[in-house]
Amino acid sequence: MNLEELSDRYEITQVIYEYCRTLDEMDLPKLTALFTEDCVVDYGPDIKSEGSAALRRDLERMWRWKRTSHHAGGVQIEFVGAELARATSYVLAWHEAPNGSTATMMGQYHDELRRTAQGWRIAHRTQVLTGNDAGFTVGINPFRRISRPTD
Amino acid sequence: MNLEELSDRYEITQVIYEYCRTLDEMDLPKLTALFTEDCVVDYGPDIKSEGSAALRRDLERMWRWKRTSHHAGGVQIEFVGAELARATSYVLAWHEAPNGSTATMMGQYHDELRRTAQGWRIAHRTQVLTGNDAGFTVGINPFRRISRPTD
Amino acid sequence: MNLEELSDRYEITQVIYEYCRTLDEMDLPKLTALFTEDCVVDYGPDIKSEGSAALRRDLERMWRWKRTSHHAGGVQIEFVGAELARATSYVLAWHEAPNGSTATMMGQYHDELRRTAQGWRIAHRTQVLTGNDAGFTVGINPFRRISRPTD
Repeated sequence: MNLEELSDRYEITQVIYEYCRTLDEMDLPKLTALFTEDCVVDYGPDIKSEGSAALRRDLERMWRWKRTSHHAGGVQIEFVGAELARATSYVLAWHEAPNGSTATMMGQYHDELRRTAQGWRIAHRTQVLTGNDAGFTVGINPFRRISRPTD
Repeated sequence: MNLEELSDRYEITQVIYEYCRTLDEMDLPKLTALFTEDCVVDYGPDIKSEGSAALRRDLERMWRWKRTSHHAGGVQIEFVGAELARATSYVLAWHEAPNGSTATMMGQYHDELRRTAQGWRIAHRTQVLTGNDAGFTVGINPFRRISRPTD
Repeated sequence: MNLEELSDRYEITQVIYEYCRTLDEMDLPKLTALFTEDCVVDYGPDIKSEGSAALRRDLERMWRWKRTSHHAGGVQIEFVGAELARATSYVLAWHEAPNGSTATMMGQYHDELRRTAQGWRIAHRTQVLTGNDAGFTVGINPFRRISRPTD
């Protein structure tokens, strides 16, 4: 790997970390700036944000929680040409409602990022659910294992 | 650090992330390719896989879970010559059985990796348990603190 | 980014990982060496360690737990000149008492690190709490969201 590739990988990883931090902070202007203006964010069959303005408006729903804690990791990146990258990462997200009840989800972000004049930006995100407790009831796209080989 | 060392550290970190992702996906051919053919994977006093063919067969046991979510992080690496590295990393692994019951473990992977023509591969792994809930009952090697200094 | 900056970022990230690993191991001499001698560690309104000798003594309190598991991630770094860096990172920390009861906290470390002859060292740490279960009752500094925009 050359220096530019390592730097790109570092910067893309930081975009994913910054998303989690700004979401916990509910700093939606900063969060939205991590996405392209024409971004699509696909949480599940019934929840999709089209465009960064819509994303910002839609994420206002997170104010219904009193506290959240988003732990990102396991970022894996592949480049598709010089201007486009695909990244898979893991998240563990804990949410607490004003009444004290909690909801925990585990999942992956499947991102397409574009290199822009302002740095790497998420152009498309699909969120998938690898696990959740009983308190978490949002209809996120299910994670799929490969088909089980038949014996 | 020079560019080659940074690249090696990045690639070794990716091997550990890829293990977790392919395990959740149950893509055992891809997972097994992360290990050397003569690998040894030591989970605990009574669970050990010797050789990548055995590892692949042994990990079929994970089909007993309906879903798993493996969150890796905290990867620390030291090199022992140019062709061998030791890595310590953390994992938080959540497992859900078909009946809905769950089991969570926390632990470390202690890996020895060898540089091969196909990239860094895990030659030896010892898994140790730093924490678990009541649902997790597999006999993983216990993590040991240092001895408590006497007053 | 040039090679030196990437190396610095890597090394600072490793300081944070090493803190978690040595804390779980209760290797307090190794842990304390990650801090400057004049460090200040601010856990909350009523818990503060001033100086690395005090930090080491204060962290002896962690022996009251039978096991702990500290999962760090999401490390974000900015440089303030060549010798000073600020880092924000996430931690999920699980603690088990001798009687089997557990306490889990989620939070961030807000660190100031100084470049020393021995490498990057934490000079100031503030810990903030992004989440916790009912078992965790330590008075950590609360994490604050931005003010909710009025409609």
